[in-house]
Amino acid sequence: MRTQIAIIGGGPSGLLLSQLLHRAGIDTVVIERRSRDYVLSRIRAGVLESGSLDMLRQAGVAERALAEGYPHDGTYLACRNEGFRIDFVKKTGKQVMIYGQTEMTRDLYAARDAMGGAVIEEAEGVTIHDADSEAPYVTWVKDGTEHRLDCDFVAGCDGFHGVSRKTIPDSVLREYERVYPFGWLGILSETPPVSEELIYAQHARGFALCSMRNANLSRYYVQVPLTDTVEQWDDATFWDELKRRIPEDAADSIVTGPSIEKSIAPLRSFVAEPMRWGRLFLVGDAAHIVPPTGAKGLNLAVSDVHYLYEGLVQHYAGDDEGIDRYSEKALARVWKAERFSWTLTRMTHLFPSLSAFDQRMQEAELDYLKTSDAARYSFAENYVGLPF
Amino acid sequence: MRTQIAIIGGGPSGLLLSQLLHRAGIDTVVIERRSRDYVLSRIRAGVLESGSLDMLRQAGVAERALAEGYPHDGTYLACRNEGFRIDFVKKTGKQVMIYGQTEMTRDLYAARDAMGGAVIEEAEGVTIHDADSEAPYVTWVKDGTEHRLDCDFVAGCDGFHGVSRKTIPDSVLREYERVYPFGWLGILSETPPVSEELIYAQHARGFALCSMRNANLSRYYVQVPLTDTVEQWDDATFWDELKRRIPEDAADSIVTGPSIEKSIAPLRSFVAEPMRWGRLFLVGDAAHIVPPTGAKGLNLAVSDVHYLYEGLVQHYAGDDEGIDRYSEKALARVWKAERFSWTLTRMTHLFPSLSAFDQRMQEAELDYLKTSDAARYSFAENYVGLPF
Repeated sequence: MRTQIAIIGGGPSGLLLSQLLHRAGIDTVVIERRSRDYVLSRIRAGVLESGSLDMLRQAGVAERALAEGYPHDGTYLACRNEGFRIDFVKKTGKQVMIYGQTEMTRDLYAARDAMGGAVIEEAEGVTIHDADSEAPYVTWVKDGTEHRLDCDFVAGCDGFHGVSRKTIPDSVLREYERVYPFGWLGILSETPPVSEELIYAQHARGFALCSMRNANLSRYYVQVPLTDTVEQWDDATFWDELKRRIPEDAADSIVTGPSIEKSIAPLRSFVAEPMRWGRLFLVGDAAHIVPPTGAKGLNLAVSDVHYLYEGLVQHYAGDDEGIDRYSEKALARVWKAERFSWTLTRMTHLFPSLSAFDQRMQEAELDYLKTSDAARYSFAENYVGLPF
Repeated sequence: MRTQIAIIGGGPSGLLLSQLLHRAGIDTVVIERRSRDYVLSRIRAGVLESGSLDMLRQAGVAERALAEGYPHDGTYLACRNEGFRIDFVKKTGKQVMIYGQTEMTRDLYAARDAMGGAVIEEAEGVTIHDADSEAPYVTWVKDGTEHRLDCDFVAGCDGFHGVSRKTIPDSVLREYERVYPFGWLGILSETPPVSEELIYAQHARGFALCSMRNANLSRYYVQVPLTDTVEQWDDATFWDELKRRIPEDAADSIVTGPSIEKSIAPLRSFVAEPMRWGRLFLVGDAAHIVPPTGAKGLNLAVSDVHYLYEGLVQHYAGDDEGIDRYSEKALARVWKAERFSWTLTRMTHLFPSLSAFDQRMQEAELDYLKTSDAARYSFAENYVGLPF
C-alpha cells in the first residue's frame, strides 16, 4: 500500500490534518491503535481558540461547532474568594468557543467518512521505519495480518505515549519536562453550570475550576494531591470542597447533582525538540504537553497541524521552506503557550513548597492582573490564542 | 524638645518627608545616625519614576534634577546576546529620569538648610519610646549628652538596618523574605556610557546591566556568586566578563577605563507588615527591600512618603482616614513593585538551581516580551511606575 502522508493517530490532530490534506488533493492514510468508539469515549478539553475554529472552518467541519458551541467573551478569575472578570473581546476582538474535543473528533470522523478517507482502526504494533531516509514506511498488524504502508512523509499525531516520538533517536531529541506535585480531580455532572463563563479560582486550600460543556452539562475540578484516589472522593465530599474554594456567590448558587464521570489527571509540562526528524513530523501531544490550566493542549495541536499542512502543500508545489521550518515555527508558538500554561498554573495553584514570600508573590500576580489593563490584555491575548 | 513629627533617618525619604511637611506647615525634626558626608558618599540607585519626579516638584526640589537629569524614553533588554527595546513613552506617555540618589539627597539637604529645617546628625543610640501610646518620644545621645524629643508621630525612614522596624514587637510584625543566591558586582567608571538607555542582559553566564549617571559616568554590573570578593575582580576581568554577556554591538563599542568604585551587593526581596504600629510609621527600606533589577527601591520609598505625607496633612486637618489606611495603601503598591522586581530578576538572572525546562521558560518570558505589544505595555507601566 502506498500514500503520500502516513498519519499515525486518529485523534483530533491526525483527523484534522488528514481532512485538510485530502481537500488539498494530498493523499493520506490514518492509522489508529484503538477503536473509534474508544477514541470517542475519551473526555478531553473543551475550549477552542478562535484560530482553531478558523482551522475547522478551513477543513469544512466547523458547522456543528458554530451551531452548538458556546462562544465565550471572557472568563473569571478568583483570588481569596473574590472574583474578577477578564473581557477577551474588549481586549482582543476575539472569543473562544466552548465545544468538547470529543464532539470535534466526532465531526472529523463524519467528514472523513463522507470523503472516503482511509482511517485504519485497531492497528497493533504500529512501527515507523526508515524515517531518516527518502523512503519511509509504516507497518502494523491488524486481524493477525501484517500490513505495510509506503509514504513520502509520516505525521506523528499519536500523543504523548505514542510510537512517533520514541522513533526519534535519543541522540537527536532533547526533552524538557516539569512534573507538578498535584493533579486535577474532575467531575462531569448533568447540572446547569454555575457560571456560563469559566471560573479559575486560586484558594488557600488549592485551585478550583468551574467549567461547562453545555446548558445542562457542567465540568468542575479541584486540585488534589497526586496520592489521592477517586475512591476517596464521593460526590458530597467533592461538592463541599469545590464550594469552599470558589467565590461565595458562586458557592451559594451552584446546583449539585450526581457525577457521571470522575477522574484524577496529573499535570505535566513537556516539550521535545526538534519536532522533525528526517521525514517524520511530530504533531501535538506527541511533542508537547501543557497542564490543562488555560486549555492550550488541543489548540497547540491544531496550530502544529496548521504549520505542517501549509508546509506539505508547499512541498508538493515544489517549495520545501515550510517543512524545513516546521519545527522552528511550531516550537516558537509551543514555548509561548507552555509559558502561559505554566504561568497560569503557578498563579492559581497551591504549591506546598512555596515560601510565605512566594505565596504573596502569587497573590500579587493575581492582584496585578485584577487592577492592570495591560496585564489583562496580555492574559486575554494568550487565552484567545497568539497568532499562528 | 518637642515637634509634631520625629523623622528617624536623614536619607532621601526622611528628608523628602520633612521638606513636604514643612511646606505644609507641619513641624518636623530629622534624626540621622551618620554624618551628612557619610550619607552623601553612598552610591545608590539612579532611576526616578515620573511620579517620584512629581513628588520632588511638589517639594520644590526638582530644579536640578530637571536641568541635569537624563530623561529616558525606553530601555533595552537582551536575550541570548540579542537586544530589543521597550518604548515607555509610546506605551504609557511617561518617561523615567536618570538622576543619582546621592544628587537628590544633596538637593534635599540644600532645601532643608534653606528653610532652616532641623536635621540632627551623628545621633547615637536612637531609641523610639511609647510608640503605641498617645505620647511617643525619641531619645539619642550626641556629643555625650542624652536628648529627648517628644512628638505626635514617628516616621521610621532609617532603612533596613534601622531601629524603627525593630521597635515593633515580633508579635505584631510579619516578615516575608527571599534571599537570592547571587549578588551584583558593580563598577563606576568615568567613561561615556555604551548606551544612553539602560541594557538589561540575560545571558547563559549570568545577568549584566549597562547603566549610566551622565555623559561621562557609566555604571555597569555583572551577576556574581555571593562567595566572590571585589579583590577577585580586577578591572580587566570585569570588562571581559561584561562584554561576554551583552549584545555584540554593545560589546564592540564599549569604552572601558579604570573603575572609580567597585562593590558587590547581595539581592533581597523583603516586606514587613503592617507598616504602622501605633504612632510609628515605617517608610521605604525600613519596611521593604527589592532587588535592584528595575530600580524600584528609592521610588517605593517616595510613594510611601506620598501616602504618609497626605495622611499626616489630613490628620492635622481633623481626618484620620489617611493615616489609618497608610499601611494598606502603601503595601498595595509595595507588593506590586515587589512582584515586578522579582519577575524581572527571575527573567534575567542565572539561577543555578533551575531545571532545563525552567531555563526555557525564562527564555520564553523574554521572547514573549519581545514579540507581544501587551507584554511590553505591562513592562513599561511597571517600569515608569504604577500610579500612586
